Amino acid sequence: MDLASIVSALGGELHGDAARVVTGLAPLETATSNELSFLSNPKYQQQLADSNAACVIVGVAMRDAAVARGACIVTEQPYLYFAKVTQLWKRQRDLARGKAHGPSQGPWVHASAVVDPAATIDATATIGPLCVVEAGARVGAHSVLKSRVTLGEDCVVGARCVLHAGVVIGADGFGFAQDGERWEKIEQLGAVQIGDDVEIGANTCIDRGALQDTVIEDGVKLDNLIQIGHNVRVGRNTAMAGCVGVAGSATVGPNCTIGGGAIVLGHLTLGPNVHISAATVVSKSILKPGHYTGIFPIDENASWERNAVTLKQLHSLRDRIKNLEKELKK
Amino acid sequence: MDLASIVSALGGELHGDAARVVTGLAPLETATSNELSFLSNPKYQQQLADSNAACVIVGVAMRDAAVARGACIVTEQPYLYFAKVTQLWKRQRDLARGKAHGPSQGPWVHASAVVDPAATIDATATIGPLCVVEAGARVGAHSVLKSRVTLGEDCVVGARCVLHAGVVIGADGFGFAQDGERWEKIEQLGAVQIGDDVEIGANTCIDRGALQDTVIEDGVKLDNLIQIGHNVRVGRNTAMAGCVGVAGSATVGPNCTIGGGAIVLGHLTLGPNVHISAATVVSKSILKPGHYTGIFPIDENASWERNAVTLKQLHSLRDRIKNLEKELKK
Amino acid sequence: MDLASIVSALGGELHGDAARVVTGLAPLETATSNELSFLSNPKYQQQLADSNAACVIVGVAMRDAAVARGACIVTEQPYLYFAKVTQLWKRQRDLARGKAHGPSQGPWVHASAVVDPAATIDATATIGPLCVVEAGARVGAHSVLKSRVTLGEDCVVGARCVLHAGVVIGADGFGFAQDGERWEKIEQLGAVQIGDDVEIGANTCIDRGALQDTVIEDGVKLDNLIQIGHNVRVGRNTAMAGCVGVAGSATVGPNCTIGGGAIVLGHLTLGPNVHISAATVVSKSILKPGHYTGIFPIDENASWERNAVTLKQLHSLRDRIKNLEKELKK
Repeated sequence: MDLASIVSALGGELHGDAARVVTGLAPLETATSNELSFLSNPKYQQQLADSNAACVIVGVAMRDAAVARGACIVTEQPYLYFAKVTQLWKRQRDLARGKAHGPSQGPWVHASAVVDPAATIDATATIGPLCVVEAGARVGAHSVLKSRVTLGEDCVVGARCVLHAGVVIGADGFGFAQDGERWEKIEQLGAVQIGDDVEIGANTCIDRGALQDTVIEDGVKLDNLIQIGHNVRVGRNTAMAGCVGVAGSATVGPNCTIGGGAIVLGHLTLGPNVHISAATVVSKSILKPGHYTGIFPIDENASWERNAVTLKQLHSLRDRIKNLEKELKK
Repeated sequence: MDLASIVSALGGELHGDAARVVTGLAPLETATSNELSFLSNPKYQQQLADSNAACVIVGVAMRDAAVARGACIVTEQPYLYFAKVTQLWKRQRDLARGKAHGPSQGPWVHASAVVDPAATIDATATIGPLCVVEAGARVGAHSVLKSRVTLGEDCVVGARCVLHAGVVIGADGFGFAQDGERWEKIEQLGAVQIGDDVEIGANTCIDRGALQDTVIEDGVKLDNLIQIGHNVRVGRNTAMAGCVGVAGSATVGPNCTIGGGAIVLGHLTLGPNVHISAATVVSKSILKPGHYTGIFPIDENASWERNAVTLKQLHSLRDRIKNLEKELKK
Repeated sequence: MDLASIVSALGGELHGDAARVVTGLAPLETATSNELSFLSNPKYQQQLADSNAACVIVGVAMRDAAVARGACIVTEQPYLYFAKVTQLWKRQRDLARGKAHGPSQGPWVHASAVVDPAATIDATATIGPLCVVEAGARVGAHSVLKSRVTLGEDCVVGARCVLHAGVVIGADGFGFAQDGERWEKIEQLGAVQIGDDVEIGANTCIDRGALQDTVIEDGVKLDNLIQIGHNVRVGRNTAMAGCVGVAGSATVGPNCTIGGGAIVLGHLTLGPNVHISAATVVSKSILKPGHYTGIFPIDENASWERNAVTLKQLHSLRDRIKNLEKELKK
């Protein structure tokens, strides 16, 4: 792809030879003289000067430094521009590999997929190999189910969604009533509603609701191996990293981020713009926007052991301090 | 469904018009005048008075309040009764959708499933789309493998079990002997035995034993994305929430509950009636029934940072307190 | 299998009747008089004396005790020897069940697998039922994809690898650029490279790189339900237990072990021979070999609650101790 075609597709202010062909995208430090790179964080400015890249995407503040080095594309948001270049690149590569489906004559459903006749697949959607789409399920425009996705009965996927391999939408929520020592199943009569522009990572599970639906709003991004319990609601544009677990009936607000391996307990509410660190347990509702953490700090094992033992006496240590303070006052 | 048919199927003391038709089940606060609801926890009594529900399932203690409001079904255990209503509802809905298989002429195996001829499937069992059932595996009466389940060689599933999409039973346990820096595989020669009335959530994995079998006893309920290592034994009616990991050769007693994201280390024993909080690490055997927890409390990040730094000096803080106490004695 | 054939295949010094037939492998304490067992840890020496096993594999130091008991095989590394016996056993059992494929006439690909014509499968490889192998992917000699594995576009698996059911190699890494409140997808243009002798557990996911490849080096062993983010590199012979999450662009050195449920944050480096305890959060790079831990100790819930509350004041407790020390000095 030449620089001219990139700028003509995505805009930006090109400095350098528009006919220059780039053969790949690469980070600044490894880019060869045929590759396009980007600088989004000004603190890596030194890497810019040292880079062999054919061309570098930079922000306005870096214009002079970038021009001094060689070819560059100047834009307001270089990281966002870079994202769009990756999309352009992917489309070109898919075209070159003959992967484009051509003008759609109906949805593209792989022959090995098992799609119930009572499911509704938009004419522009793609259902990959070995997927299962059950009765009453719906898949919206331009959405893609990669391989081996299960979309359960009555579950709805909006437009422009991507569900990666192994995703399970609409397995039963975990609901049982106790009958002495036995557990009696509560049939899960709700479904799952997924909005537009949602991406769901490999082997992630979203359970159907007990009576009402589990809801994933527009623009949500979920990484791999995430568990979303029944009747959870995840607000617009919230992103969760891998291995997160959200227990039943929790409400996660819009524009939140949840770090990898974090656990959100059931029936809690996170307000908008709440950011949870990786591996943190959210054990109470949090309505105030901010950054929250609860991680036991890693340490050399021997040191950890000493501190962990002491931790179990922390309450009594506090009492001893209180006593010392009293005695000293006397 | 009318109230008469519910009470005739499940018992309970009906107050109100038996011919009243209900069109759905809903929580008290959202139920419309056509929906059936329930009150299991007396602390939500106010919601009862305010509810528009057509009929409410209540306990004996709530009889008067419920009758004063309108139609109700009085029963000893309203939550259990509600569970049974969901089952009734599901059966009705499946019938209406033509999903009942009719009197079984042999197991119902989806054409896309890959079932080894040397597997044994009960005539009343269901094997869903794109499942894999390997040689020597057995599936008991009325058990259901939903879509894309793998049941490995020689693994046994009892009666009335439900295995949700993506479950893997009988992958190799994680066993290797060290040979210098290399790992030499220990072939896993055992299998997995799953009792009756077990439910296993989406994408959960239960590994085959090394020499002997991994065992899941009757009535166990496992949520999604759980990992059960080789040679684990999980006792009757124990329930585990999503994302739990139980390492190899651990024994979890009967009637335990394990919260989401908890980790049980290998070779440990949990006795009966042990309840582990979410995200807790069980690092030693626990024989005394009770409720156990180990979670770093969540906090605003800045506050967490200060405390986390101090935590690494906790042992020395204790020593300083000890010194203060000594000096003060002098 | 008789003892003679075991020793002839694997070496070792046999004491006892070479014609003795063993019908199974079992731990010392449960082995019957027809079963072969092993003793690798001298502290279980008492179990040796009490065992009914037909024959016991022991180290040199245990020779006399073992000979005094009965038949034994003496070898330098009894646990490693035992591992090799399990392999021998598995091969025999597979042969007896007619599972050997015979001299390969090309790769053994199950009829239900979906293999792109532009994928390259070695003539000695096995692709199990309902696997998906995408264009440009390669599977090396003697490697086995069990059932329902997805190997994504351009991803490479080396020789003698085992990928268990439900594994997803090459789903998109989790990469988005923020555009106001929206997330713009960064297409993941790299792939995944997996070396030789790698084993990957059920439902584990390894994401493709953003620009460059995610790399799993030779001899790595990954348990079930592990998440490996984009552009991670895992060094030779490193082993990770179930439910581990390694975030994007982290580098894990060779010969490391990572306990179950541990989380490694993004862009960190672990040097060689770093050992991380289960459920520990690695929040900074660790270059010094050793054993590291960060687990909140489990406790009875009531006791945990008291200590957890105090933990949030730990910083102020330290200040109070400091004050006490000052005052006492005066």
